[in-house]
Amino acid sequence: MNFKEFARSMRAATALAIAIALPVLGTPAAYAQSTQPAKPAQTPKQLEPSGRTIAMQGTANGVVACVTCHGASGEGNAAAGFPRLAGLGADYFEAQLAAFADGRRENAVMQPLAKNLSPGERKAVAQYFSSQPAPKGIRTEDPADATPSDSGAWLATRGRWQQDLPACVQCHGPGGAGVGSAFPPLAGQSAAYIEAQLNAWKNGKRPPGTLALMPAVASKLSDADMHAVAQYYAQQPSAEAGAAAAASQPASQTASQTASQPAAQPKADAGAPFQPPPESAMPGGDFGKSVKLGEQIFRHTGQYAGKFVGNSLSCANCHLDAGRKANSSPLWAAFVAYPAYRSKNGHVNTFAERLQGCFNYSMNGKAPPLGDPVLVALESYSYWLATGAPVGGKVAGRGYPKLPAPAQKADYARGATVYAQHCAACHGADGQGKSSNGQTVFPPLWGARSFNWGAGMHETQNAAGFIKANMPLGLGGTLTDQEAWDVATFMDSHERPQDPRFKGSVAQTRAKYHDTPNSLYGTVVNGHLLGSP
Amino acid sequence: MNFKEFARSMRAATALAIAIALPVLGTPAAYAQSTQPAKPAQTPKQLEPSGRTIAMQGTANGVVACVTCHGASGEGNAAAGFPRLAGLGADYFEAQLAAFADGRRENAVMQPLAKNLSPGERKAVAQYFSSQPAPKGIRTEDPADATPSDSGAWLATRGRWQQDLPACVQCHGPGGAGVGSAFPPLAGQSAAYIEAQLNAWKNGKRPPGTLALMPAVASKLSDADMHAVAQYYAQQPSAEAGAAAAASQPASQTASQTASQPAAQPKADAGAPFQPPPESAMPGGDFGKSVKLGEQIFRHTGQYAGKFVGNSLSCANCHLDAGRKANSSPLWAAFVAYPAYRSKNGHVNTFAERLQGCFNYSMNGKAPPLGDPVLVALESYSYWLATGAPVGGKVAGRGYPKLPAPAQKADYARGATVYAQHCAACHGADGQGKSSNGQTVFPPLWGARSFNWGAGMHETQNAAGFIKANMPLGLGGTLTDQEAWDVATFMDSHERPQDPRFKGSVAQTRAKYHDTPNSLYGTVVNGHLLGSP
Repeated sequence: MNFKEFARSMRAATALAIAIALPVLGTPAAYAQSTQPAKPAQTPKQLEPSGRTIAMQGTANGVVACVTCHGASGEGNAAAGFPRLAGLGADYFEAQLAAFADGRRENAVMQPLAKNLSPGERKAVAQYFSSQPAPKGIRTEDPADATPSDSGAWLATRGRWQQDLPACVQCHGPGGAGVGSAFPPLAGQSAAYIEAQLNAWKNGKRPPGTLALMPAVASKLSDADMHAVAQYYAQQPSAEAGAAAAASQPASQTASQTASQPAAQPKADAGAPFQPPPESAMPGGDFGKSVKLGEQIFRHTGQYAGKFVGNSLSCANCHLDAGRKANSSPLWAAFVAYPAYRSKNGHVNTFAERLQGCFNYSMNGKAPPLGDPVLVALESYSYWLATGAPVGGKVAGRGYPKLPAPAQKADYARGATVYAQHCAACHGADGQGKSSNGQTVFPPLWGARSFNWGAGMHETQNAAGFIKANMPLGLGGTLTDQEAWDVATFMDSHERPQDPRFKGSVAQTRAKYHDTPNSLYGTVVNGHLLGSP
Repeated sequence: MNFKEFARSMRAATALAIAIALPVLGTPAAYAQSTQPAKPAQTPKQLEPSGRTIAMQGTANGVVACVTCHGASGEGNAAAGFPRLAGLGADYFEAQLAAFADGRRENAVMQPLAKNLSPGERKAVAQYFSSQPAPKGIRTEDPADATPSDSGAWLATRGRWQQDLPACVQCHGPGGAGVGSAFPPLAGQSAAYIEAQLNAWKNGKRPPGTLALMPAVASKLSDADMHAVAQYYAQQPSAEAGAAAAASQPASQTASQTASQPAAQPKADAGAPFQPPPESAMPGGDFGKSVKLGEQIFRHTGQYAGKFVGNSLSCANCHLDAGRKANSSPLWAAFVAYPAYRSKNGHVNTFAERLQGCFNYSMNGKAPPLGDPVLVALESYSYWLATGAPVGGKVAGRGYPKLPAPAQKADYARGATVYAQHCAACHGADGQGKSSNGQTVFPPLWGARSFNWGAGMHETQNAAGFIKANMPLGLGGTLTDQEAWDVATFMDSHERPQDPRFKGSVAQTRAKYHDTPNSLYGTVVNGHLLGSP
C-alpha cells in the first residue's frame, strides 16, 4: 500500500470512525500520524513473546498490538482497508512481514512494525493468526448463476480467458476461501484492501509472489475491473463489515458497470480461433436450462454428475474457461468434429459417445448411458458453444497444440525440476492437488483421484501440448517446449488408476492400447512398472 | 420417333443386321422403305383377330406382324432401336397405339400400322404383349454404389434434384422394371430407343403422358444426359441385346463422361439454400462406410433397417434427394438444429433422439436404441451432408415451406379432385402407393402401411408445405396453395395406424397430442372418427 492508497483508506476510515466499536489502543485516525514514523531504535534480541501476546499487546520493542488496527479477532477493518489476518496461512503471513520489513512490499505503516519484529516473532505472530478462525459470516459459496454483466462476480468465478486471465476462485478457491499457504483468502478482505493490493501488483509495489501470478493477473485488469472484483469480495465478509464497506464506496455500483469485457485478445500463436457466443447470449426456456445445466456439469462435474465420476476432476480442469478456451480442447471444436471414427474403440463415435469416453477415462468413472440428461445437457452446452461454427470444419484452436518433438529426449529428472519450480505450488509437491471447502481447486495430476491410464492426458504429447499452451494457469506459453515435454513426462511417469480396458496383464494392455512412445504405461520408471498395482 | 431419329436407328440397324437371327418376315432394312408408306386403303370393320394373331401374323388389313420388328417374343431389337413390347402395361401400350394413329406420337412406320388397327385390335394386341413375360436377363436391381461420375447410373437412380429432376427409378421402379400402367419398363429397352423418346418429349414429338412428367424431365436433360441414361438402361437387357447395343454405340463411353452435373439451379422461391457436399466428396475409410451406410438406410429403410420399420416407407420418401433437397426437410438443416427442445415430448432432444422419433412415427416402427449402428450411420450421414453449415444456423431451405393459410377453408371434396388429377396416377386411387420387385416405388399415403397418427406429416400444414414444394415428383410448385391445402386435407382425412402415444381413447389422445386445427385426428370425416379402429 503506497501513501496515496493509504491516505484514501484513511479518508474512508475517518468518515466511518464512529462505526468502529472495538477496544483499540487508538483510533485509525491516530495512525494517520504514523505514515512518516520515527525510525525505532534497534534493540538487542530478547526473550520473544508468544504470537498471541504480540497480537494482543504488541512488544516491548514498540510494536503496536496487531489487533489495534486489524480487529480484536484479526477480522480486519473493512472501512479502514486494514486486512483480515485471522485464518491466513502462516507461511504467507510470515512472508508478508518479511517483505514489509525489507521494503519489497511497500507500506509506510507496516514497514517499521515488521522491522521491529524478529524473525522468530514474525513466525510466532503468523502462526497465531493462522490458527484463528476465519471471521464469521463469510459467504463460502459463489453464486451459481453469475452473469457477465456482473463483472466482479464474473471475473472472480470465471475469469476472462480471452486474455488468459484465470478466475480468482481458480487459485483462491470457491468463495475466495483461500487454498494452502500460497493463495490467501479473499473472502473477508475489504474492497479497499483488495483493490489496493491489485494496484500494488500492477505497479510493482508488492513482491510478485507465487509463480509471479499476481503481477500477470493485475496487468490484465483495468481500474474498473479491480474495483468490481474487489467489490465482489467485499460483499463476502461478515455482515457489519460488509455493510460498512458498501457504505464507504458509494461509487462502486456505477464503476462496476463500466468493467465490461475488453475485446478478445487471442494469443499471438493461436491464429484467429473461433469465438463461441458470449455467456450473455445463453438462451432461455427449456433448451436454455439444458445448456446451463451442461455448463454447470462441465464446471463442477463431481457436484452435478457425481455418480458418473470416480476422481476429483471436473471437465473444466482440462478444457479451460468452461470449454471455451482455444488450444485447450474447446467444446465448440469438438462438437463440429463428430461423428468420427476413433481408433481408440474401433468404430464411429457420435459426440455423445465421445463424451462417454471422457467419463470412463479422464473422469475415471462410469459413463452415463446414452440419452441420460447429463449427456444431453453436455451436448446441448457444446452445441450452443459451437453456434455458427462450420460442421466438420477444422476450426483453429481445436484440441491441444501439437508440440514438435523435443530437442532432447524428454527426461524425468529435468521434468521433476520443472515441476518443483512451476507446478508444485498449486498441484502440490505430491501431485495430489489442493481443495477448499470440499471442492477441488487444483486437480490431482496422478494417484487414485486423478485420470486413469486410458485418458488422453496420460499420453505425453497431449499433456505437453496442454501444459505448453495453458500452464501455469494464466501463464500459458511461458514454459519452453522442452520444459513442457519434460514435465509432462514427469507427470505421466506416476501411477494412476488402471485403464478400464485392462486385458489381464500390463504387458497385454500395453500391447493392445498403449503401444506408442507417448505412453509410459507398461514401462518401468524408477523401478516401478507403470500400470501395475 | 421422327424421321431423323428413325433413320439414325436404321443406320445402326444396318450395320448390325447380321446380328439379327430372328425368324422375321423382313429385315429391318426393308422397313426403311416404309418411312413414306403408301396410305393403306380403308377397309370395313371385320371380325377382329386375337392379339396374339396380330402380333405373330399381322392383320388382313395390311398390318405387318409386330414380331417382324419387335422380336419373336416382343423383346425388341436393340440394334435397330425397335422397342421391347413384352410386359408393357396394356393401358400404356394401347394409349401409344392411339397416339401413333392420330399423329400425336410421331412415327412414320407406326402411324399407318396403328391407323389400320381398330380400337379393339389395339386393345387386343396390347393385352397380348402385356401378358408376355419380360425378356430374360434383364437386371432387376440397380447397382448399390452408383457414383456421380457414372452420370447415367446416377441420373437413373438418384436424379438431379438441384433441378427438381427425379431419378428414373422413382417412377419406373428399381432397375427400371416399370410400375403400373403409367410407367413402362425401361429395362430391356435399347439405348437408341430410350434416347430417341427422350428427344421426342423434349421436342414435343410425343404426347406428354402421365401428369406431363416426361416433357418436364426431358427438358432438364442435355444431349449427353440422355445418351448416358439411355446407355445405363441399355446395359440392363438380355445379354445378347445388351452386347449388341454396346457394340452399336462406341461413342457412349466418352459421351457419358461429359454428362456432368450442371450448376445448381435452386428454385426461385427458395432463396439460396445451403449446398451439401457432392456425392463425389463422400469420405472413405471407416467413417465413410458409416456415412454410406447411413445414406443406404435413408434411401432404402426397409431393406437396411427393416426391424425398426413398421410400414412401406423410406426416409427419402419425405426427405427427397436422399435428404439433400432444400424445402423437403433436408438432413443438413436438421443436423445443425439439434439438440433442441421439442414440445412433442417435452424435453431437449439430441439429433439421435430426433431420428428415433422418425422411426416411431413416420416409419410406424420401433426406434433403434441410442447408439445402435443404424442411428450412428444416419447421424454420420446427416453430419456429412451438413459439412460447412453453421451450427445452430437457420439455414435457408430447412423443413417444409410454411404455406399461408388457404384463402378458402381446406376442403376434402376439392382435395379429392386434386388427388385424382395429380396424385392418383402414382399413389393409386386408393392411396396405397405402388411397388415394384417388392420395393416401394410410390409410398402409401394412408392405411396400414403408411405413417401413423403421430407423424408430422399427418398435420395438414406440414403435408401442404411438402406437397406444394415437391409434388408431383419433379413438378414441385405447380399446384396452387389452395390445391396443396385441399389435397393435404384429403390425404390426412384417411385412417392410418394409431398414434403410439395413444392414451386409452381417441378423445383423450387428441386432447393430449392433437389439439390443433392442423390435426384431423379425433375428428369425424365422412361419418368415421379418425383414429378409431
